[in-house]
Amino acid sequence: MTRRVYLDHNATTPLRPEVREFWIELVDRGLGNPSSLHAAGREARQLVDEARERLAACLQVHEDGVIFTSGGTEADNLALFGCVEFDTRGRGLATSTIEHSAVLEPAAELARRGRPWIRLPCDEQGRVEADVVAAAARQQTCLVSVIAASNELGTLQDVAALAQATHEASEGRARFHTDAVQAVGRIPIDLDGWEVDMATMSPHKLGGPVGVGILVVTRGTRLAPRAHGGGQERGLRPGTESVAAIAAGALAVELAIAEQPTYAARVGDLAARLWTDIAQALPGARLLGPPMGDSRRLPNTLNVLLPGVDGRVLVTRLDLAGLEASAGSACASGSVEPSHVLVALGLDDEQARAGLRLSLGRTSTLDDCQQAVEILVKTCRRTHATRPLDDRL
Amino acid sequence: MTRRVYLDHNATTPLRPEVREFWIELVDRGLGNPSSLHAAGREARQLVDEARERLAACLQVHEDGVIFTSGGTEADNLALFGCVEFDTRGRGLATSTIEHSAVLEPAAELARRGRPWIRLPCDEQGRVEADVVAAAARQQTCLVSVIAASNELGTLQDVAALAQATHEASEGRARFHTDAVQAVGRIPIDLDGWEVDMATMSPHKLGGPVGVGILVVTRGTRLAPRAHGGGQERGLRPGTESVAAIAAGALAVELAIAEQPTYAARVGDLAARLWTDIAQALPGARLLGPPMGDSRRLPNTLNVLLPGVDGRVLVTRLDLAGLEASAGSACASGSVEPSHVLVALGLDDEQARAGLRLSLGRTSTLDDCQQAVEILVKTCRRTHATRPLDDRL
Repeated sequence: MTRRVYLDHNATTPLRPEVREFWIELVDRGLGNPSSLHAAGREARQLVDEARERLAACLQVHEDGVIFTSGGTEADNLALFGCVEFDTRGRGLATSTIEHSAVLEPAAELARRGRPWIRLPCDEQGRVEADVVAAAARQQTCLVSVIAASNELGTLQDVAALAQATHEASEGRARFHTDAVQAVGRIPIDLDGWEVDMATMSPHKLGGPVGVGILVVTRGTRLAPRAHGGGQERGLRPGTESVAAIAAGALAVELAIAEQPTYAARVGDLAARLWTDIAQALPGARLLGPPMGDSRRLPNTLNVLLPGVDGRVLVTRLDLAGLEASAGSACASGSVEPSHVLVALGLDDEQARAGLRLSLGRTSTLDDCQQAVEILVKTCRRTHATRPLDDRL
Repeated sequence: MTRRVYLDHNATTPLRPEVREFWIELVDRGLGNPSSLHAAGREARQLVDEARERLAACLQVHEDGVIFTSGGTEADNLALFGCVEFDTRGRGLATSTIEHSAVLEPAAELARRGRPWIRLPCDEQGRVEADVVAAAARQQTCLVSVIAASNELGTLQDVAALAQATHEASEGRARFHTDAVQAVGRIPIDLDGWEVDMATMSPHKLGGPVGVGILVVTRGTRLAPRAHGGGQERGLRPGTESVAAIAAGALAVELAIAEQPTYAARVGDLAARLWTDIAQALPGARLLGPPMGDSRRLPNTLNVLLPGVDGRVLVTRLDLAGLEASAGSACASGSVEPSHVLVALGLDDEQARAGLRLSLGRTSTLDDCQQAVEILVKTCRRTHATRPLDDRL
């Protein structure tokens, strides 16, 4: 039996061994509740504080601006509801059309509650223009949120330009948030230099544990809390802290940021090779987002349009053949709708169902990529033999 | 150096070895994202489904009614906001005055948003009367929430009577929620028999991991989601599931419920002995809540009023001497306010600052209790020698 190949690292990626070690060491230490006054509680508190300080140092932000949540979705919800609900003037928000559902759905809910919601269009590569953001920021907008690196396409935004456009056009009255979940550890991050007000991070996307997320809040952005209870996380995120996961998650972020250049070089080479091989074997295949080699794409993510193929069906067949991939965002896998991200690029519904996402990780190898191409080509040919496929494949 | 004694199990209690084993086994299995369609994703999905089914079976509820959250606070928030915000007629809620902050603070926030909030008084033992609940349920009330077992006092409510009063007085138009975080595994639980509509549970209070909570929703109670994103947890709790913690947390709840009678007998004996020894050594001490031996108290929780003592100062001194205890809820430890729970009993501010909570756990021993009494008595006498204490001590 052939080894299985996992190319779905944007959905979740394996826990790093050194993070696992640290995590389990903490679990086994039998930590107290960080809110307790005694030694067991103070030890736990100190671990949370240290995680916050280390993260703040490596992200070059103030430690008060590091808010631990239960995950990226909660962090995005806190950023969007927190900022918009803090605004007593009834202003709303602007998001790109290619956001993750953790941003789109809170935006839709805020719109249902009467807040204006501007949907920022993107070009056919998934890029949002600064002047489109500026126009939105001139409206009744207190928040602009644009995903730093698209989870589905791998397209990168010029976050600095979008943040600057937000601030300038709104004369400093609107904030800029970015879901940086797929960006951290994959491209250089400079929240301060980019003048980003809020950024969401998710350790399980970069070798940390699931169950912890991070909202970084810079430049004194004020938020209404989304949950209420004990005063944890400066009142912004109540509930007993998941100490071991927080400390391990912070370590994972630190490691990923430190190793980002090496990771990007190695994984970028693999992804380029993977695309070359796919393009050669399946001449009808089309790479979505910016072209390979363009600096405006994530090093690890390929979204390949295979005309005439149903991505969800293909993913199931690839799985049977030993390749784990995705037809889009994991969080939307249950949906029968075509990917809203691919539709936003201007593709029709049929095309938008024909995307296959291959996302590489720190542990991916050349062997993985070669085997993936082999499985993909075989599966596409087999599929071709049993049901009509587009001529171009 | 003497061994340290931990009597703060209501704040958090050690992970059970068998739960740790299972948890780490799952962490090491390298699970996928449960929303992914491939084998790694499906394995993760199956673990979440199994956890839900096992919990539903042991709680005797429908599995659709088991919602996994990141903790008890999030579950309480979902119950309160979810139920009240689903109500389009603007009705509000009633809570006891001795709720945990995870219920009180959401209630206060709902009140700030214009929803009526009735605060149900309790007697001097912390008990809420059914007719008080009934009167509230006849008002503009869509939800009554009363904590099953007080985290600070150990007082138990007659949950069945309160739920029945809610339903009868409102003619079925109001729902009953109970924060059962301190009750599960300590007293017999019968959500169906009690006719409870929603119950909150927190695995880390009973030998499970921190970072997972459970909201049980029975009898078709409908909730507005509190967070928005992917469709996880039937749309009520989006975000990538913390699979290993969910599975381990469910196991911890199962074990705690199965062992509840043994636990209660053993820990109840220890607590009775602990109280006898304290009462004998410190004649001024007074046990809050129902008297020892009363069936209306948790087996593991003592809240001892030590007149003239400042509980927070005492806790710090006890810690130095090797006893880890609490002056009230861990989540409120940072506060300088007297415990709202003790104030609700009718104590004045000074008395309400004089409570010491000792909470036993599955791993507590007779030795722990004896050492605790020794440390407590020594510390109180030493404190007495350096600052004026009430004569009664």
